[in-house]
Amino acid sequence: MPDDKILLAHGSGGKLSHDLIQQLFLPRFSNPFLQPLDDSARITNQTGPIAFTTDSYVVNPLFFPGGDIGRLAVCGTVNDLSMIGAIPAFLSLSLIIEEGFPISDLKRIVSSIFDAAEEANVQIVTGDTKVVEHGAADKLFINTAGIGWVKAGIHLSGMNAKPGDRILLSGPLGDHELTILSQREGFQFQGDLKSDCAPLNDLVGKMIEFSPSIRCMRDPTRGGLATTLNEIASKSNVGMVVEEEKIPVRESARGICELLGLDPLYLANEGKLAAICPPGEVERLLGVMRGHPLGKDSQIIGRVIEEHPKKVVLHTLIGGHRILDMLTGSQYPRIC
Amino acid sequence: MPDDKILLAHGSGGKLSHDLIQQLFLPRFSNPFLQPLDDSARITNQTGPIAFTTDSYVVNPLFFPGGDIGRLAVCGTVNDLSMIGAIPAFLSLSLIIEEGFPISDLKRIVSSIFDAAEEANVQIVTGDTKVVEHGAADKLFINTAGIGWVKAGIHLSGMNAKPGDRILLSGPLGDHELTILSQREGFQFQGDLKSDCAPLNDLVGKMIEFSPSIRCMRDPTRGGLATTLNEIASKSNVGMVVEEEKIPVRESARGICELLGLDPLYLANEGKLAAICPPGEVERLLGVMRGHPLGKDSQIIGRVIEEHPKKVVLHTLIGGHRILDMLTGSQYPRIC
Repeated sequence: MPDDKILLAHGSGGKLSHDLIQQLFLPRFSNPFLQPLDDSARITNQTGPIAFTTDSYVVNPLFFPGGDIGRLAVCGTVNDLSMIGAIPAFLSLSLIIEEGFPISDLKRIVSSIFDAAEEANVQIVTGDTKVVEHGAADKLFINTAGIGWVKAGIHLSGMNAKPGDRILLSGPLGDHELTILSQREGFQFQGDLKSDCAPLNDLVGKMIEFSPSIRCMRDPTRGGLATTLNEIASKSNVGMVVEEEKIPVRESARGICELLGLDPLYLANEGKLAAICPPGEVERLLGVMRGHPLGKDSQIIGRVIEEHPKKVVLHTLIGGHRILDMLTGSQYPRIC
Repeated sequence: MPDDKILLAHGSGGKLSHDLIQQLFLPRFSNPFLQPLDDSARITNQTGPIAFTTDSYVVNPLFFPGGDIGRLAVCGTVNDLSMIGAIPAFLSLSLIIEEGFPISDLKRIVSSIFDAAEEANVQIVTGDTKVVEHGAADKLFINTAGIGWVKAGIHLSGMNAKPGDRILLSGPLGDHELTILSQREGFQFQGDLKSDCAPLNDLVGKMIEFSPSIRCMRDPTRGGLATTLNEIASKSNVGMVVEEEKIPVRESARGICELLGLDPLYLANEGKLAAICPPGEVERLLGVMRGHPLGKDSQIIGRVIEEHPKKVVLHTLIGGHRILDMLTGSQYPRIC
């Protein structure tokens, strides 16, 4: 690339757009589905239902300990596909770039997208690049949409939770949001804190293999675990009880939360999942989760009940209990 | 919606995000695939290949004669699916909204998305909303990704053009870009000019039905017809000759182009297509195109040749000829 900064012409659809595709994207993402560069990718499907999802990523800063916007854009969409039990297969990649954005940064992010796609075993098959004038967007926004294959007989949904079910959580809460917060505000107490941003499809694949009657899974991103559980309770018309002492939170994360008055139950995660399964399967499922690097700190954190439908109750460390509502207000913008 | 402006909390993933979904999106877009509101939509596929595409829309202004960013975001993605001969079926919808954006404008745009989706016979099945702080994005950006079904035996691609083929164009050039330009700069000479923004899938369906051996189709958006033809010539390793006198341009559009020194061959369109077909089918195909409201001004504008591969030559009105290169530089930013 001859220029060191993105120009408006890189989004013109003309010569410089083609150069960007040929020199920056194709060398990394080349695959038989992308290669024809037609207006749509033509992909061969498997039989059975398709999972389809989308997310835009506006995280600030673009680079942070544990990842960057590129890794996030792949993992987030892979995880959304995984949560309904689909095997993520194909991603689209659409960039909105601010004029003047350093091409070296774009290269780093493209590299990171490539690495994350490899890690998650998905292919980027179609894309788009828009450039807006300086000041019309803050550096870079990314959208990924994703397609996955749903195996026969698998039907995970937030509407499936039943009284008696157990609630599992795959690891400690808050690392992603606290990392972004610390980076943005320049806090010194970061310690070993880093984003948990990771593709969960391998973990999910193993969970489904060993426990095909899992009712539902969700990754507690924006709004945190509290909002996620409220969504499921509401859609399944059930109540939930969660034990605070069972919820894993890293020591360093807990310290920051106490200092800033944040509740880890409302913080965004990018590599964690909550799962709900029938009681008879919970121990085996916990074993499967703990046997995976991304689930080694998994815990059974609560249960689904018939009482107080659509409400989640937290049994607190000090022996009381309180209603755990969904997030109200904006805890922190642009965390993903 | 109690508030008249979008707040950061509308993108928090919490209570206000849910309100936005429940009160603004679901009442318009409700369908069985979207309704579960799980992390991904679960859709039932047909057999055969899938088409998959994405585009982000950053058009400025958001509202313009002939459409708005919402209509554009549906039509653009529907058209990208149509161009490889797919039947558009499902769209994702992802919004990046600037804090403070008027909810009344958002409602108008959601309405317009709904109307365009109805017109194109596609369903919105999954979505995402992000809100960024005031100044971090210019009002509203939209991403749509799309899935379509490719019929057995249909394989349109820019790589398929062959010497002897004819080139067709479905109508006059430049209306969309000139409309945006006029709106943005406050030009008075707008006349009856309006964007041609329209879903082409119905027209394409009829073209394929009556002429299944069409080689390829493209909608000349950014970069215009000149860039589109160069892309096909390059990928098919063929030359092309185009007759300027055959290329339809509205009188009003031609006037603006002459005044501003713009070339209609490089202007973006949002409801036109170029098609390439074998010579024996061209008259029948032209008839089919002219029989459709979106193709009534169709013309045979040129032919594919063996000579000067990867180059497009224009036979000009005054009897000369010149190489028609792809767009270099940025003619005009944020037209789509």
